[in-house]
Amino acid sequence: MEVLENLTYDELNVGDSATYSRTLTEEELILFAAVSGDVNPIHIDAKFASQSIFKERVAHGMWSGALISAALATVMPGPGTIYLEQSLKFKAPVKLQDVLSVTLTVAEKLPRGRVVFDCKVTNQAGDVVVEGSSKVIAPAEKQVLDRPSLPRIIIGSPDEE
Amino acid sequence: MEVLENLTYDELNVGDSATYSRTLTEEELILFAAVSGDVNPIHIDAKFASQSIFKERVAHGMWSGALISAALATVMPGPGTIYLEQSLKFKAPVKLQDVLSVTLTVAEKLPRGRVVFDCKVTNQAGDVVVEGSSKVIAPAEKQVLDRPSLPRIIIGSPDEE
Repeated sequence: MEVLENLTYDELNVGDSATYSRTLTEEELILFAAVSGDVNPIHIDAKFASQSIFKERVAHGMWSGALISAALATVMPGPGTIYLEQSLKFKAPVKLQDVLSVTLTVAEKLPRGRVVFDCKVTNQAGDVVVEGSSKVIAPAEKQVLDRPSLPRIIIGSPDEE
Repeated sequence: MEVLENLTYDELNVGDSATYSRTLTEEELILFAAVSGDVNPIHIDAKFASQSIFKERVAHGMWSGALISAALATVMPGPGTIYLEQSLKFKAPVKLQDVLSVTLTVAEKLPRGRVVFDCKVTNQAGDVVVEGSSKVIAPAEKQVLDRPSLPRIIIGSPDEE
């Protein structure tokens, strides 16, 4: 079984980095619209989006934010991390089939377990789509957990309600 | 049919505010885990979470971020908004059945359509769970759109994979 293993405060060094990747599919657009309530047609209506400045559907900007938070929670530092702060600058649109890579780099270790990470999200062309900074309390103790599996999610056809 | 109607840059005044509310259900926890890849058991495994410092499952912090982005995209300023920046401070955990209210307040109008909003997310007890600031390009032109409806999403039982 796959595991989630954290990096403790003591194991993190300034300059250490880790990456986490996801591809934007139609499913992500629908699920993010559902879970946030952001049904703006630029994200979910292909015809509407084709007439917009983006010419096609684009990801919710905060989906990239969600990927950064997932990288912190599951990769570095991983389980046991307490999320304190996040800043985000949205630099470029994310389109269907774009493969995003989140790179987290330890920027600063502060007292009382606090760690600051630089965050950069790039697409498959190397363009930076989001950049920012995270502040967390890194875990004090090692944890190795079974990676939970999610229930199956089925998305109906758009005309079925 | 319900509509999404925006507020243009010219219609926004410093001090104007709007709210947007959502309730945290088990469905949100599963969908946010699926769409971000953040399967940390603190969010989705009731037994694991009961032994954590939170004593029960808690929302992904960035779900509150997603609600802020949804408020910007659908309520104020609404359709046509370009998201530039977001800062978030996570102040308190969000638990199942918590009803979150995002309040956006126009803090500053800048040249070239830029608007800064103060963001506050509170729960039903009035506790601030997240606060931050957003910077957007507000729409120059009025838009009134039909609110798109989403396809049905079905979540399988946890042991079915």
